[in-house]
Amino acid sequence: MHNFIINNPTKIYFGKNVVDGLGEFCRQYKSNALILYGKGSVKKNGILDKVLYQLQKEGKSIFEYSGIKPNPVVSDVASAAEFARNNNIDLIVAVGGGSVIDSAKILSLCIKENNDPWKVMKGRVRPKTAVPLVSVLTLAATGTEMNPYAVLQNTSTQEKIGYGNNLIYPAASYLDPEFTYSVPADQTAYGMVDLIAHTLEAYFGSGSAPLSDEFVFSIIRETINVSSQVLANPENYEYRARVMWAATCALNGLTSYGRDSSDWGVHDIGHTLSMLYDIPHGASLSIAYLAWMEHFAEELSERLLFLGINVFGREVEKSNDTILKFKEFFKSVNAPVSLREYCPNADSQQIISLMCKNKISGYVHKLSDIDYTKIVNIMFNN
Amino acid sequence: MHNFIINNPTKIYFGKNVVDGLGEFCRQYKSNALILYGKGSVKKNGILDKVLYQLQKEGKSIFEYSGIKPNPVVSDVASAAEFARNNNIDLIVAVGGGSVIDSAKILSLCIKENNDPWKVMKGRVRPKTAVPLVSVLTLAATGTEMNPYAVLQNTSTQEKIGYGNNLIYPAASYLDPEFTYSVPADQTAYGMVDLIAHTLEAYFGSGSAPLSDEFVFSIIRETINVSSQVLANPENYEYRARVMWAATCALNGLTSYGRDSSDWGVHDIGHTLSMLYDIPHGASLSIAYLAWMEHFAEELSERLLFLGINVFGREVEKSNDTILKFKEFFKSVNAPVSLREYCPNADSQQIISLMCKNKISGYVHKLSDIDYTKIVNIMFNN
Repeated sequence: MHNFIINNPTKIYFGKNVVDGLGEFCRQYKSNALILYGKGSVKKNGILDKVLYQLQKEGKSIFEYSGIKPNPVVSDVASAAEFARNNNIDLIVAVGGGSVIDSAKILSLCIKENNDPWKVMKGRVRPKTAVPLVSVLTLAATGTEMNPYAVLQNTSTQEKIGYGNNLIYPAASYLDPEFTYSVPADQTAYGMVDLIAHTLEAYFGSGSAPLSDEFVFSIIRETINVSSQVLANPENYEYRARVMWAATCALNGLTSYGRDSSDWGVHDIGHTLSMLYDIPHGASLSIAYLAWMEHFAEELSERLLFLGINVFGREVEKSNDTILKFKEFFKSVNAPVSLREYCPNADSQQIISLMCKNKISGYVHKLSDIDYTKIVNIMFNN
Repeated sequence: MHNFIINNPTKIYFGKNVVDGLGEFCRQYKSNALILYGKGSVKKNGILDKVLYQLQKEGKSIFEYSGIKPNPVVSDVASAAEFARNNNIDLIVAVGGGSVIDSAKILSLCIKENNDPWKVMKGRVRPKTAVPLVSVLTLAATGTEMNPYAVLQNTSTQEKIGYGNNLIYPAASYLDPEFTYSVPADQTAYGMVDLIAHTLEAYFGSGSAPLSDEFVFSIIRETINVSSQVLANPENYEYRARVMWAATCALNGLTSYGRDSSDWGVHDIGHTLSMLYDIPHGASLSIAYLAWMEHFAEELSERLLFLGINVFGREVEKSNDTILKFKEFFKSVNAPVSLREYCPNADSQQIISLMCKNKISGYVHKLSDIDYTKIVNIMFNN
């Protein structure tokens, strides 16, 4: 086991009506609050009104910035930062899923110091302060509500990359499972794929961390156990709560303590697909993970077998069974497994070219040009 | 799933030589530091010197208070509080296992406000402040290093009770597995029993929390998996690290999120045994848990079976198999299962009388006089 530090300052308020306490929590901050959200579903389903009420009753001056895209782009963050600077924003309240919260995280680093968001993402400037951020989660998927990471894409450079900074832990995150009742079946499924992918990026990292492995198995089993129920009963509190909590645990540190490094190669492959064809993040991951596991099946045979036995039980007898079981699961929730089927206009050469240009790679299982070609072929032919 | 809040401020520094950063961490506090420890093993094995060096290099004035007993008593905390007040202590550094850290936690509430520690424990005074506390852990067992709980006994009232207060989270805890190399085999085993007991108190609590159940299984499996190795190789870093991390996770919230309540009835039974016969905490729990599970076997048959299948696999076919498997495990690490064998001078009437006097009970599975008699009988005859 590798040395590690736990220092996660995010306060989690999980459960029914927890947003009722958001105003009181925000009392500690100054008065100009910016609410960031996406394309308006939070307006329709009444969540935005609840947040507005909380801030109004505390006498905050409220500003809104909306239109954050599902695959969030850095240019939106740049515009939001300008808007925030013009209005002397002291507090950001992000209402949405990973795209909105990730955008808010980078935004929080760009207001006071007038930083350029892409320079921040690329590590070319190192922000020293962040505007406080509170998140209200409406999609169980990325785990961003309790971690210091954000992912954004830059359409002009054709990059979609991740960023980490301890300054961008949300101060508090509000997780009301009822706020996910209206998430459609496909997005619900992609969220489950995403959270499983996060645990696998840790599991296929480097360094021995047996309890963290156990937590990986726990989170995947829990997700698979509840998956058909949550899809069949989208307004069932218990099922939505279970998926929501699993998603948070999948990327709040728990699956990584004691490891040297996670891998993140599959996320980079998935980001390439999202960048080129605007494929939802989770959908890109079910396609990419199967291909990646198949490509590395021999190298990873022991880890794959151990994973399969612990997640799926004794039905798994060899490493390839693990891959088949994940494929079966992805199909059972209607997450795509074949790029050809899911995205008929996808072009293998275009994908490989962008992978080459961006030199995408995992931290542990390094990817070369030859790997790109093989993995892309499997993605098409699955 | 029940609503819950996560707001755990303890910073964890886990791994080799992490104490090298203790001085820097303590720079933020004022200058009068009290080091609290037990009967001096930390002197012999050099851990105290490392802590002293860290505080000396930061120019702290250092005071020492030692002699905290393995079953810690409130009168020692009262004396330490007087000593601390006389020396204007601004910072407590607890170097030891659960007994030392728990004593330090209550001590931290008694210095500035001149509180009586037993009145604090019994909830008769409500402290508003705590002196900052840093812990250096030398025994993997209680999980106190990352939670807001403490247990003390009062020999004059013959009570051993728990206490919780968010003020007593350690500011930071240093977990170096090497610091547990010299823990003897019996204490190592009792630590493993204790950590498993913590997960079971959560598991047998109330309210549905499937992912927390999964984490319970994970932690127990991990502990059982590593148990024979750590006992056979007490100076193996990996094995010590795995037990240490499992113990922290067993009572840092992870196994409880989403539950209505944990039970804690078995701890109360164990505390009665420790109170009367100075039995080590973990040893009291292997005896008490088997008896408690057997006593409630019918009422808990479904939960017992589910637990057994998930921890021990398909060998477990009925609920009683789960109890037998735990018995087998306790025996395998030389933790006691029979009170008659372990403590020949134990007297069943004396135990039952004290249970009656203190009205001990679980929060969920309430214990009556009839339960006391039956459980005590099983403890003797196991």
